[in-house]
Amino acid sequence: MKKTLKRPNYAEELLKIIQSPLKNEVLLDRLNDYHERDIADALELLSPQQRKKLYPVLGAERLAEIFSYLETPTQYLSELSINQAAKIVSFMDSDDAVDILEQMEASAKEKIVTLLDADSSHDIRLILSYDEDEIGSMMTTNFVVIRKDLSIRQAMRELVTQAGENDNISTVYVVDDADKFYGAIDLKDLIIARETDELNGIISTSYPYVTDHEKIDNCIETIKDYAEDSLPVLTDSGKLIGILTAQDIVEAVDDELGEDYAKLAGLTAEEDLHEKTSTSIKKRLPWLIILLFLGMAVSSVVGVFETVVAVLPIVMCFQSLILDMAGNVGTQSLAVTIRVLVDETLTAKQKFNLVLKEMKVGFLNGLFLGILSFVFIGLYICVLKHYPMGHAFLISGCVGFSLMVAMVISSMVGTLIPMFFHKIKIDPAVASGPLITTVNDLVAVITYYGLAWLLLIHVLHMI
Amino acid sequence: MKKTLKRPNYAEELLKIIQSPLKNEVLLDRLNDYHERDIADALELLSPQQRKKLYPVLGAERLAEIFSYLETPTQYLSELSINQAAKIVSFMDSDDAVDILEQMEASAKEKIVTLLDADSSHDIRLILSYDEDEIGSMMTTNFVVIRKDLSIRQAMRELVTQAGENDNISTVYVVDDADKFYGAIDLKDLIIARETDELNGIISTSYPYVTDHEKIDNCIETIKDYAEDSLPVLTDSGKLIGILTAQDIVEAVDDELGEDYAKLAGLTAEEDLHEKTSTSIKKRLPWLIILLFLGMAVSSVVGVFETVVAVLPIVMCFQSLILDMAGNVGTQSLAVTIRVLVDETLTAKQKFNLVLKEMKVGFLNGLFLGILSFVFIGLYICVLKHYPMGHAFLISGCVGFSLMVAMVISSMVGTLIPMFFHKIKIDPAVASGPLITTVNDLVAVITYYGLAWLLLIHVLHMI
Repeated sequence: MKKTLKRPNYAEELLKIIQSPLKNEVLLDRLNDYHERDIADALELLSPQQRKKLYPVLGAERLAEIFSYLETPTQYLSELSINQAAKIVSFMDSDDAVDILEQMEASAKEKIVTLLDADSSHDIRLILSYDEDEIGSMMTTNFVVIRKDLSIRQAMRELVTQAGENDNISTVYVVDDADKFYGAIDLKDLIIARETDELNGIISTSYPYVTDHEKIDNCIETIKDYAEDSLPVLTDSGKLIGILTAQDIVEAVDDELGEDYAKLAGLTAEEDLHEKTSTSIKKRLPWLIILLFLGMAVSSVVGVFETVVAVLPIVMCFQSLILDMAGNVGTQSLAVTIRVLVDETLTAKQKFNLVLKEMKVGFLNGLFLGILSFVFIGLYICVLKHYPMGHAFLISGCVGFSLMVAMVISSMVGTLIPMFFHKIKIDPAVASGPLITTVNDLVAVITYYGLAWLLLIHVLHMI
Repeated sequence: MKKTLKRPNYAEELLKIIQSPLKNEVLLDRLNDYHERDIADALELLSPQQRKKLYPVLGAERLAEIFSYLETPTQYLSELSINQAAKIVSFMDSDDAVDILEQMEASAKEKIVTLLDADSSHDIRLILSYDEDEIGSMMTTNFVVIRKDLSIRQAMRELVTQAGENDNISTVYVVDDADKFYGAIDLKDLIIARETDELNGIISTSYPYVTDHEKIDNCIETIKDYAEDSLPVLTDSGKLIGILTAQDIVEAVDDELGEDYAKLAGLTAEEDLHEKTSTSIKKRLPWLIILLFLGMAVSSVVGVFETVVAVLPIVMCFQSLILDMAGNVGTQSLAVTIRVLVDETLTAKQKFNLVLKEMKVGFLNGLFLGILSFVFIGLYICVLKHYPMGHAFLISGCVGFSLMVAMVISSMVGTLIPMFFHKIKIDPAVASGPLITTVNDLVAVITYYGLAWLLLIHVLHMI
């Protein structure tokens, strides 16, 4: 058998280290070998007494990093004095600090904010001033910035000085005398530059950037495309006020897709395991109420065809089949369209082509499934329900034909409705679902019972 | 009005620069100010002749980066001689090179692979040797690695030497004499370290890592949690063979969620705008065929209740309402469960609690919607369909009660079925959808028509 490298359980290793009778210095030295996230996991396994002994050993700067990984950081912050808590929050990346402050009770939050040093307090207030769908709300204010007129040697010295306080050093940002963004230097280029080189030679001046008030949704694709470790965030006047780190970008991509996913499933937001039942109900009920009333509207249309069903009850059996299939096809088109619409640069022609393509896919799939239904349902009615063969295949013909029509129209509706909502600036992922289901149900019901009715009157002469 | 900083169109700026009559040196100097992705965009706007003039100006190393951003890089590679193309591929990050080679025709691919330098060729063959769901297939072999017994000064010198060839320098990896992974150094710590410090003091030896044959699905949550710019990839024997960069992680998160999203919508894989119709049909048809046959099974069960409908056709109107609602609730539970199951560390108790919670949510939402239906549908039947009030509310009572029962059972089924598939190691996102729809439809149909049948026989004495 192949020898397998078992992934170590660092949290348990840490637990043993912390619980062993080591001197503080030795303990700190051992702890320094571990990643902050694993120490965070270990913290959660300790008793409050053990943690209180550990906090001073680790120190505020390291704790700041560890606390950013905790699931419920406020619980652990409350084990510390308010001064110590404020010191830890001061050392955090400002976006992480904001996340924690937002989870705190108003009174505790106020106390801590007043105790923060001027820099942290300024940064935190800045980030809090943005709406949560704006780029500014997810930026980090922790970055290395230098003036454009430095020499390579001076730039290197600045880097060493600033690196002590700033984690995000992979890109060095450059500003002009008015603090406006001038360009960016890849740290690698600075490190391999010779002292006699010109700094200007390694600055990319036409570097990509985002602005603080941009909607995250609108620029996430661009951000992802640049595949950079960090991107600058500018104000409308071109001042450099923050950066997006790779972690911010991972988080944003995760959030954005998570939201699309949730909305496709008819949830107003992503849910997790720890959520209260009442919160879950609130997220799900709005959609369900809308769907209920739209469903009632469909029911009243079905009611129009009551007489058809009274005379030929067998047609009713296949209603669920046609509606379900139309719904499935509509959802497929909807899902594809929503992801395609994320790209804001689509031309009208590309959109038109997408509708055409969806209809073509709907038609070809519908034709295939329609024929399958015609054959199998015809046999079923004929053999198991003992209808004469002619009648059986007339009925299954209605089913097959309606299925095909419903699938073409569902594909079209599933593409056009999200495009329409996108055009009028309503989130297509939220609004499209219920409307598509309803329109599809109506089309399917009218086509199917309409055909059955014609069949009864004109062919079977049964009414 | 607020003055707004309009985001510049770098690709168009570049187009003007490239088309102006500049000397090659000046042109290169101007181009160096731009990001590779923007140059890639500009390339796509040029004519083949213009591009052929530009390639030698940019040089193979820069072209390698630019080509990683192109949507159809093989098209542009074919404008170059096979030797030049091989040189560009050699300079690429090995994972990007693999992506490009996989898009090439077998013959062109073979030719290029034989022309690659030994290093690139080794790395590319290594990455190609992994399945596409294994970590190894997405790793980068481009990283800075040093021996553990160096001094700070020697380590810094190694960094400067290796940085010339390797882009990913934010973490410096450390190996022992047997090339086994020993630990990692945050570049920041190396930069601010004093020459008199011990290198060992800044190495994290218990650093998180992934192994090359791990399934991406299984460790993506852990990778995301560590929020690192890069993570080491080890073999089973502990040898360091690659890293995951932040870009690799963004891509993996994007892919993973994209797949879940597609599967929830009944697509076998994510689709995009440029896909051929036949490919789209192939992605969608398998599901639809399964759904069709399951739908036929439901139809045959509905057929059992034909007599009920023949006597009381009005009950048929509300079938679509109950089935749609059960479907919606089941999808909500399914979506939540699939995302929760991504966490592999869930205990049996947590899973049980999730089922309980989903059923509670289903019951409470069902109760509320059931009462709404009872009232509104009762009024509808009574006022618009002119049924006696007693009969009307008996019928709407059947609808309301069935709706509630269907919603509770849908919630349960929507949670249990994905858990079951997850347990037997079948992807729950793929398998659950059709089964849930079918089970829910069956439960809803049997409850509803069963109740209606009892109502007819025992209360209304109509059969």
